[in-house]
Amino acid sequence: MKNGGVGDAGGAACPPAQPAVAVLGSGDFAKCLSIRLLRRGFHVVVGSRQPKLAAQAFPHVVDVTHHEDAVGKARVVFLAIRREHYSVLWDLKHLLEGKILVDVSNNRRVNQYPESNAEYLASLLPDSVVVKGFNVISAWAMQQSCPKDASTQVFICSDSVEARQQVMELARQLNFQPVDMGALSSSRDIENMPVRLFPGWRGPVLAAVALSIFFFAYSFVRDVIHPYVKHKQSDFYKIPMEIVNRTLPTVAITLLALVYLAGQLAAAHQLYYGTKYRHFPRWLEGWLQSRKQMGLLSFFLAAVHVLYSLCLPMRRSERYLLLNTAYQQVHANVENAWNEEEVWRVEMYVSFGIMSLGLLSLLAVTSIPSVHSALNWREFSFIQSTLGYIALLIATLHGLLFGWKRAFEEEAYRFYLPPSFVVSLALPVCVILGKVATLLPCVARKLHRIRRGVDSSQHRCQRLEPVGSAAHVSPERVTIM
Amino acid sequence: MKNGGVGDAGGAACPPAQPAVAVLGSGDFAKCLSIRLLRRGFHVVVGSRQPKLAAQAFPHVVDVTHHEDAVGKARVVFLAIRREHYSVLWDLKHLLEGKILVDVSNNRRVNQYPESNAEYLASLLPDSVVVKGFNVISAWAMQQSCPKDASTQVFICSDSVEARQQVMELARQLNFQPVDMGALSSSRDIENMPVRLFPGWRGPVLAAVALSIFFFAYSFVRDVIHPYVKHKQSDFYKIPMEIVNRTLPTVAITLLALVYLAGQLAAAHQLYYGTKYRHFPRWLEGWLQSRKQMGLLSFFLAAVHVLYSLCLPMRRSERYLLLNTAYQQVHANVENAWNEEEVWRVEMYVSFGIMSLGLLSLLAVTSIPSVHSALNWREFSFIQSTLGYIALLIATLHGLLFGWKRAFEEEAYRFYLPPSFVVSLALPVCVILGKVATLLPCVARKLHRIRRGVDSSQHRCQRLEPVGSAAHVSPERVTIM
Amino acid sequence: MKNGGVGDAGGAACPPAQPAVAVLGSGDFAKCLSIRLLRRGFHVVVGSRQPKLAAQAFPHVVDVTHHEDAVGKARVVFLAIRREHYSVLWDLKHLLEGKILVDVSNNRRVNQYPESNAEYLASLLPDSVVVKGFNVISAWAMQQSCPKDASTQVFICSDSVEARQQVMELARQLNFQPVDMGALSSSRDIENMPVRLFPGWRGPVLAAVALSIFFFAYSFVRDVIHPYVKHKQSDFYKIPMEIVNRTLPTVAITLLALVYLAGQLAAAHQLYYGTKYRHFPRWLEGWLQSRKQMGLLSFFLAAVHVLYSLCLPMRRSERYLLLNTAYQQVHANVENAWNEEEVWRVEMYVSFGIMSLGLLSLLAVTSIPSVHSALNWREFSFIQSTLGYIALLIATLHGLLFGWKRAFEEEAYRFYLPPSFVVSLALPVCVILGKVATLLPCVARKLHRIRRGVDSSQHRCQRLEPVGSAAHVSPERVTIM
Repeated sequence: MKNGGVGDAGGAACPPAQPAVAVLGSGDFAKCLSIRLLRRGFHVVVGSRQPKLAAQAFPHVVDVTHHEDAVGKARVVFLAIRREHYSVLWDLKHLLEGKILVDVSNNRRVNQYPESNAEYLASLLPDSVVVKGFNVISAWAMQQSCPKDASTQVFICSDSVEARQQVMELARQLNFQPVDMGALSSSRDIENMPVRLFPGWRGPVLAAVALSIFFFAYSFVRDVIHPYVKHKQSDFYKIPMEIVNRTLPTVAITLLALVYLAGQLAAAHQLYYGTKYRHFPRWLEGWLQSRKQMGLLSFFLAAVHVLYSLCLPMRRSERYLLLNTAYQQVHANVENAWNEEEVWRVEMYVSFGIMSLGLLSLLAVTSIPSVHSALNWREFSFIQSTLGYIALLIATLHGLLFGWKRAFEEEAYRFYLPPSFVVSLALPVCVILGKVATLLPCVARKLHRIRRGVDSSQHRCQRLEPVGSAAHVSPERVTIM
Repeated sequence: MKNGGVGDAGGAACPPAQPAVAVLGSGDFAKCLSIRLLRRGFHVVVGSRQPKLAAQAFPHVVDVTHHEDAVGKARVVFLAIRREHYSVLWDLKHLLEGKILVDVSNNRRVNQYPESNAEYLASLLPDSVVVKGFNVISAWAMQQSCPKDASTQVFICSDSVEARQQVMELARQLNFQPVDMGALSSSRDIENMPVRLFPGWRGPVLAAVALSIFFFAYSFVRDVIHPYVKHKQSDFYKIPMEIVNRTLPTVAITLLALVYLAGQLAAAHQLYYGTKYRHFPRWLEGWLQSRKQMGLLSFFLAAVHVLYSLCLPMRRSERYLLLNTAYQQVHANVENAWNEEEVWRVEMYVSFGIMSLGLLSLLAVTSIPSVHSALNWREFSFIQSTLGYIALLIATLHGLLFGWKRAFEEEAYRFYLPPSFVVSLALPVCVILGKVATLLPCVARKLHRIRRGVDSSQHRCQRLEPVGSAAHVSPERVTIM
Repeated sequence: MKNGGVGDAGGAACPPAQPAVAVLGSGDFAKCLSIRLLRRGFHVVVGSRQPKLAAQAFPHVVDVTHHEDAVGKARVVFLAIRREHYSVLWDLKHLLEGKILVDVSNNRRVNQYPESNAEYLASLLPDSVVVKGFNVISAWAMQQSCPKDASTQVFICSDSVEARQQVMELARQLNFQPVDMGALSSSRDIENMPVRLFPGWRGPVLAAVALSIFFFAYSFVRDVIHPYVKHKQSDFYKIPMEIVNRTLPTVAITLLALVYLAGQLAAAHQLYYGTKYRHFPRWLEGWLQSRKQMGLLSFFLAAVHVLYSLCLPMRRSERYLLLNTAYQQVHANVENAWNEEEVWRVEMYVSFGIMSLGLLSLLAVTSIPSVHSALNWREFSFIQSTLGYIALLIATLHGLLFGWKRAFEEEAYRFYLPPSFVVSLALPVCVILGKVATLLPCVARKLHRIRRGVDSSQHRCQRLEPVGSAAHVSPERVTIM
């Protein structure tokens, strides 16, 4: 897709009302920003330390000049320079007085400096109005007129409401979607945005890894070490598939139970304090915010578990064992090996497993952002809470049917360790019982009243004063999950 | 992510041009709305029955006062009060004259009252201008500056175009995406939005459930009751997996056939009346609008069918039957059990089944809203119509190959009932033949002319007058599916 | 969902500021556009060749008149007529002088005419200001107030910046999202948008089809023709599943390797020329742009391969072969058929296969537009590059373990052809070695410096002058994939 030439932008048709904008810097970002401004009819003045050299790199309609000169001609100045070079602005201090400085800089790491670049800049130039923004846009995205592959959201903050609104309007004119992030103290968050690496996933992934290591080791000891020690039987071939496939479902169901445990703890907190306006402890807030990620990890592990299970009959080991059994059956002259109880158990637990995965896949689909935003709150909560609890219930039944009577057989307790399904089902069973408890009329009624906001007004104030810094998790959301 | 503090918003930097906005009510929504307005530089006056008590709950820059006082200071008044308390507005009637009242109220159920809250309000206060809006936004979403998890669409309607546009502009300033819904008569739809529960899915899900019950009972009678009655053979173990897995594909293919049958009936309607401007009967319009949901249900059931089928070899029953067959083969001294016809039949029907699921998964992916909106109409119709018909054709072949000659064998007709694949394939075969008919040159040409709008102008008028209430299904769409 | 009536729009409440807009034409698009304009408070004048006849089809508040009359009343004129009828505008030439003409026309094929409709129009009427736009919106979508199913992006271009901005503002008022596409030379691209059919997929699909044919024929010769010729053994039953299932993974891994090969060639190009500002050859740019599609195709084929593999144990042929083996084992009196090496090989390669599919599915999920736009660049590149290379590595190991020692056995070389896994793994192994090479400190450091833009300024200029027509692929993106 060709974009329009640049030449026309500075032509006679340009509306004279569009004011001049200064850009300090001559890197890729400065260039792409200048061209985008030009295309939308702005007059652009570029400030460079070596204007003659830099001018070659810009379209000719751009006015490339010295820093001082550029700053003098515009009210809004984009600073497309690195934090390390902010010192050059010191000399322009008097020229920058009262101007709106848009700091577009990024760091290389999360929280690289003690204060954000924008706040540092504001402390250097207290008489200028610093606005943070555009740093989430790459030079590449700046160049695209058509927002296909890249997000066009631009996060903007400043201590001056007026300057913030002016820069937001400018962002809109450049075809970006400005998002008001409030005061300059948000600049740290904004600067961390493009360098963060799945911050919301860290906790859930760590939990999943820790659980995986535990359950893997547990199964390894019970299913490989135990037969080796007791009967000198070498079952090491079980490691790549059977032990892995025993680990996956246990971790998946534990994560799913943890998703709903968080909501129950939140409900308990509200019941205990009798109000929804009291902040949850930090660890619980973090946990509540990680539910989506934990649920998706649970689904992913459950899906991989299904793949592993489906691959079991395809293995050579399975084939050999089957052939050996056939040989033995012929030699023992057993015409019919049918065992009605075993048949029923397996048919049932496979069936429950499939149902549970089917429900989980619905939950996963509604986590896709564009599907999510097409649902209203009631629909989303129906899927995530009602169907989610049913999925947990069915998955628990799947596990119980898989284990069957083995929990009560002595030989299942190798090294005195219970089978792993017993260990992994303890938590889901508790969560299901907890859910049953909150559905009891007396508890449900009290909880409903609390969540409708019926409490003393003192609490309310506690909660509402710091709305500016309010967490993403609201108590209302807890109603549901 | 911390948001900026509230304090700055009322500061000196606030542009004086932003007018005052009144908010009546002191609930969670009123607070979150006030804070959002403040942050965007508006002057907010809150009206409360107990201003002193309520003031504690609001940031101090907010002016909390009596209802009368608040209303007097602003031209736009947000009513964040329940319908049950509209009576308090009666006393303010003269003060509210000519003001724009934004009704943000919600009900608890779909169509809870005979008329919408906004229309009721307009009848109470005929001299005020009532605008419906913002009700789809929760207090929680109101508090978020960054539209991550929540949709930011705000649906607005009013009988006054001017007031509507003013409130839409205000919504835009609050970082929402206003959607113009026309006259106040739309307020019922807007009020139902946040309390609806998958209205578009009701019909398709009911159809799927009814078909499932029918086919389940049918298979149960044929495959479990019949052997029990005739041969005293207890095959009840087949219920959880085999009968379910016989029900799933039959329902899936029937739903897929129904998707395309709707389009063919629409085409027949157009051919019969010779115009595309004549409305379809209501049941057909509803059916046409449910095609996406029916297609997704069909895909879901087909995918679950695949899971069940893949789990078949993993069952104990399968294992026992195989071992018994091995025993019998050894005893009968049959060296080679190979049956070329059976081998080919199974290889072919499994292969067709996989292909058909592969195609259906492409159709399902293009139903994700953000994928859908990245396609143009031609691309979408290629996937949904061309690939969809091919998927139906291949799925039908899959069923025919599965059934093979059994349709013509007497013993397949247990209790005189034909095998379920015969019952379920009748409709898909008809739909495929119907498609072939519309592809015949004479029919295709006539249909093409009708859909290009070549007909008498009288019909055209019939259709276009009520465009305001035009259904979502346009005849053009029928061209394709 | 009912939309508001039309009647109110022209009522007294309409803000008088909204100017008159003329629409020439009386087709479906003209009607739907007029109604949408009316609803947003514009005064609409429709120009028709037969105003009396046409007036019946429009709401009465619309002023339907002669072309000349309509044009005279408005400054912005929508041309809702086909290119074939542009000649009628010739007579209005003097009336259209200085007016903004919005050309909404579409063609039926990509590049149907030598120049775009809008450019042709501009050459016919050099004294009018031609703006291209709204052609991607169907009459059906024009009618919808609520942008549910349809994309609301409207691409606009014009040689006059002022006219472009005016029409973009108008689009915004009609609740569309205008996208500035620059000068009128972009109109060809804009006109091709609604008639294109997956242009980005053509190359990758062709590559996949060609590779499929090659690998299918290769396997067919080795696995079906060879046993038939040499041993008169009829293995034709293998065609529908085994041969297909040998083709799918080879094509999938080759496509995945091609995705990463493109990035490596780009890196080699940059290393060779020592700059990132030199354009890549056209074939390489096309290849780089096709990586997403190739990766998705690879995932799709890998997923179908998994389905085929999982269906293998369900086949009759598998069952017969197993029964025959059981028979033979009994007759040969072999109590234990266990083969430790074979067991390990299969357990390992199945396990690697599952892991590789799991990783590929993460890559596929991040290709969903709304998921993609929720990630920052660093997160996206982590998934697509780091995880992608790991997936390729594991898939290669999967293939190597599948093949095992057969690459070194003479009887595997049927007709002197190596096993297909040898052929298909050559490329992935090269790509992995290439990646290792770019990770060597000396190479990595040089590449890093080039990509930070450290080179002579002459090169920079070469690249930046034609930014207007810059390709979508930026060198920075190559850093990653």
